[in-house]
This record gives sequence, structure tokens and C-alpha cells, in this order.
Amino acid sequence: MPDSVADMGEFALIDAVTARFPQGRPVLLGPGDDAAVLAVPDGRVVVTTDMLVEGRHFRRDWSGPRDVGRKAAAQNLSDVAAMGARPTAITVSLAAPADLDTGWALEFADGLREECDRVGASVIGGDMVGAEMVVVSVTALGDLEGRQAVLRAGARNGDVVAVCGRLGWAEAGLKVLSRGFRSPRALVEAHRCPDVPYDAGPEAADMGATAMCDVSDGLLADVGHIAERSGVRVDIRLSELGVDEPVREIAGVLGADPVAWVLTGGDDNALVATFPAETALPERWRVIGRVEAGSGVLVDGEPYAGPSGHTHFS
Amino acid sequence: MPDSVADMGEFALIDAVTARFPQGRPVLLGPGDDAAVLAVPDGRVVVTTDMLVEGRHFRRDWSGPRDVGRKAAAQNLSDVAAMGARPTAITVSLAAPADLDTGWALEFADGLREECDRVGASVIGGDMVGAEMVVVSVTALGDLEGRQAVLRAGARNGDVVAVCGRLGWAEAGLKVLSRGFRSPRALVEAHRCPDVPYDAGPEAADMGATAMCDVSDGLLADVGHIAERSGVRVDIRLSELGVDEPVREIAGVLGADPVAWVLTGGDDNALVATFPAETALPERWRVIGRVEAGSGVLVDGEPYAGPSGHTHFS
Repeated sequence: MPDSVADMGEFALIDAVTARFPQGRPVLLGPGDDAAVLAVPDGRVVVTTDMLVEGRHFRRDWSGPRDVGRKAAAQNLSDVAAMGARPTAITVSLAAPADLDTGWALEFADGLREECDRVGASVIGGDMVGAEMVVVSVTALGDLEGRQAVLRAGARNGDVVAVCGRLGWAEAGLKVLSRGFRSPRALVEAHRCPDVPYDAGPEAADMGATAMCDVSDGLLADVGHIAERSGVRVDIRLSELGVDEPVREIAGVLGADPVAWVLTGGDDNALVATFPAETALPERWRVIGRVEAGSGVLVDGEPYAGPSGHTHFS
Repeated sequence: MPDSVADMGEFALIDAVTARFPQGRPVLLGPGDDAAVLAVPDGRVVVTTDMLVEGRHFRRDWSGPRDVGRKAAAQNLSDVAAMGARPTAITVSLAAPADLDTGWALEFADGLREECDRVGASVIGGDMVGAEMVVVSVTALGDLEGRQAVLRAGARNGDVVAVCGRLGWAEAGLKVLSRGFRSPRALVEAHRCPDVPYDAGPEAADMGATAMCDVSDGLLADVGHIAERSGVRVDIRLSELGVDEPVREIAGVLGADPVAWVLTGGDDNALVATFPAETALPERWRVIGRVEAGSGVLVDGEPYAGPSGHTHFS
């Protein structure tokens, strides 16, 4: 096998990568033509896209190719789930230096497939180009299966706010890596790729969620989007929110505030949704706050004083 | 208005860009949520993606932001047309340096819209991230409107090969710019953004095209894809192919071989298709060769000796 993607050549590499992607039933035409064709029996398709840049969203010395592939897929599949839809397919563009190891590209492809396999989605197309750094762009498609899409707008005064998934883990993992450590492993792995509760998205829609989004910018920032779009205020209760044990522990070791990580850390791709107060929520949906009249996001009734979320151009 | 995208901030910039994108009828939910929702009455959606990297696919001193936006859209919309489908929507990811001029980003958005307007497509979503260079990734979606998709496979011995659109223009424009010139303007503009005959794609499908693809890598390379997938040989006839006058003229000035540009130049996004020999083709579809038994691509019955197409990792 040639050492670098340049040695191997674009077409041979595309063939090798494509061979790693089995095609699911809705794929009427997979990779290899000008475009793919996907069956959309619902008559509506959910579409989202996200880009990851080396040095900003991942480092190749902190994340392996499989992690980067999984994360790139997960971020987008998660956005589909956050609409109440089931992810069906992704397309992937990879920009990479000519001297990138062929093995890196192939393991990256394995990561894409692995994450797609978790939801039964197929990798139906892509592009590979040269660049000075690795840039990954994924577009994910999904099927609402007859459900109404759950938007960010729709939360109502009196609703409860609930979360499914992890908060603060990816941020804790990032801080661990930043200090030069490689453990605790669970946190480091949470930074490398989120563990997304995909099926909780359609589940929330079926339970009558009034608004939903995934937590990619940080809980306060993303709940802020729901509050703004819905024209309501959200009050997060710290006593209900809690901090998961591994996050609390490492924050103690590093002398950091774990609550700040839980409130503002991004990249865990938990799902946050609002529900009518009387909704009987399954255990994995933890109520963490209430929707009130007003605007903005409060924490225990007060504006949060710490840093809030991150900006992608900083 | 702030000078740089970093000054303006991610969310304000996204709002300003999004305001430039009117949403067409099939868009059930446009930009601004976790994902968009697009109506797909046909029950099948065509999907394709392409990435453009600064310094590889465009130079910011040779192409303005509107050109880059138009070209990024055009390359993808063209792939949709090459399936015999009508483009309906695109998503766009833009990686850009923090000091990128806000005006650049907004004019880039105008270019996306301008090209989408040519086919009635909408910009339904996107992402903006920081990077050392400008990288654009577009995914385009399309509607087959009941047609059968026209694949690269399907050309049959005895078919004619026909082209709709320009060949060699973008390559001539690139050579002009490479020599430090800014004219002839028509050629330079052809490099900056192709003039794609979008509606010729569905037209070809309706006329019974047996195979089709768009010419993005160069005529010989792309016809080669059809030959390979279809298990046939294609013989291109130079006397039928011809060279457009502006291309011939500037080749004379630069001491270059215009036929090489026509045969191997990329980025014009003409459509090349094969049809049963008895098909009555409209004037804009020029017959340039024949499908024969065998394999590979010949030019006037001989293997072509010049350079053939380009590779993206070189």
C-alpha cells in the first residue's frame, strides 16, 4: 500500500475508501457517479452540515483518524436527531496534505462508517482534495418518518427543560489533554468523539417535545438559542443539573470549576429539549430546569457570571 | 460594519449571510435550526458534494468573492444536472481566516445566491469556522421529477457522444491569469466561474441519454469514466469537437496547443452524454464522437499522447 495519499492518487484512494462503505436500503445509488440518489419515502428530507478544521476542532496528535471520522459524523448525525429525525446518510469532503498517510485516510473512513453504523446511516458520497491541513466537511440527511420536526422555537412558559446525554465530559477531556495527560481515558475519549443518544431525538419528538437542539456550543449557549427563538426565559437549576462523577473528580485534580464545564463546555452533543410539564419522561431524560415568561437563560434564578460558550473565530 | 469576520462574530455573520438567502417553495424549514427540512415530492433526492481550497481551486487575487461563491455552487449544481435532475437546494460550509474581510464573506454569499438563482435553488444551511485559509464545501440536492437518473454506466456500442457547454475556456482563462494577464475577459471569467447549461441535464434525460457526466476533470478523463463504467470505448473526433474561437486565438498568442486545453482542461462543467444514434439532438448538443466496443478513450482512433486531466493531490 502506498505511504501517502499523493502516492496513491485521488481515484485509487477514493476507490479504497468507498469500498469501506456498505450502502443501506434507502440508497438507490451510492458513491461513484456525479451524485448519489437516496430514497425519501417521507417526502421530506432533513439536511445539516458541519465543518471540522485541524488545530481548531481536533489535533492529530490528540485524536486518531478513527476518532476524527467518528466525531465528524457524530456532530452532524446529532443535528439530524435533534430535529426528531432518524439519520439516513452522510456525504463527506476531506481536504488533506499530500503527505498524509494513506492509513490515516482509511482509518478516518472506518471512523465515519463506525459512527454511521450506530444509526444505520450510509456514507453515500464525498470529495477529496489537497490542502495544507486536514479539513473535514460532513453533510447529514435524515428521515422524519412522519413526525413533525422539532424546532428550537416552540418552548412554552411552564414547560420543563430536560437533557439526554453527557455534559462537561468533552470539555474535561480537552482540559486533560491540554495539560499533557492522556487519562482519565473516558474523558479523553469523550473529547475525541461524543457518545450521542441518537434515538432520543425521535423519542423526544414522539413524546411531544416542544423545542429541541443538540448541545454543541455549550448548554447555556444552546439553551439560549431555544429561549431566543421561543421568546421565553429558561431557568437552569444546578441542583437538578448535577455534575457527573468523572467530571467532578478531574476538576478537583486540576483545580477547575466543574460546573462551568457542564454549563459552557461544547462537543458532548447531548440533546436538550423542552416538554409540557406533565410529560412522563424516561429515566435518561433528566429535568434540569423550567421554561418561564421572559427572555434569556438564568442559572438558579440569576444570570450566569462565568464564561458562556465558545466562538469559532476566536 | 465590522472589518473582519472575527470582529463581527460567528452568529452575527451567520445572520447577515442568511438574510441574503431567500427560501424557495420546497424549503419547509430554512437556515437557523439544527438542520433544514426540504420537501422531496419525488420520493428520491439527488445528493452531491465538492470542496474548493484556496490556492488549489482558486486564488483570492485572481477571483473575487462573488466568483468563488458562484463557482462553489456551480460545481455542485452541475453534478446534480448531470444526473438528469433539477437542483433544489445547497448547504455551504466556509472555513476562513479570522482576519477575512466581512465584505468578502457577504459577497461570497451573494455569489452563492446568484448561481442558485439561475436554477431556482435555495441555500438552506451551512457552517462557518476558522482556518488558516479559505476552504469551501458545498453539498447540492436535486429533484429527478419522476425521471430515471442518468448514470455514467449505460453507454452502448453505436451511441453518439455529445457535449453541451464550453470546453477549454476555463483552462485558457487559467493560463491567461498564470501569465499575469487579465484579459481576454471572457476566458478569465470562464476560469472564475463556469457557465453551466443546467437545464441541458434534465433535457438529456428526457431525450433518452444512456449515460452522462459533467466535465470537471477534463473531457478525456470524464469521458473515460463513462467508458470505464459502461464497459465501452469512446472515440472522440477532433473535426467534430472543434475549438471555440476565443480559445484558439489566445492559444495562438501564448504559443500553446488549444486542442490539449479542450481535451484535458477542467472546470468548464460542460455536460457530456451518450445517446442512441437516432436521437434528434437540439443544436446546443454537439456530437463529438462515437461509442464503440472495447475500452478506453481514443482521439481520432488513436490513444491521446498529451497530458490527460489533472489530479487533485498534485
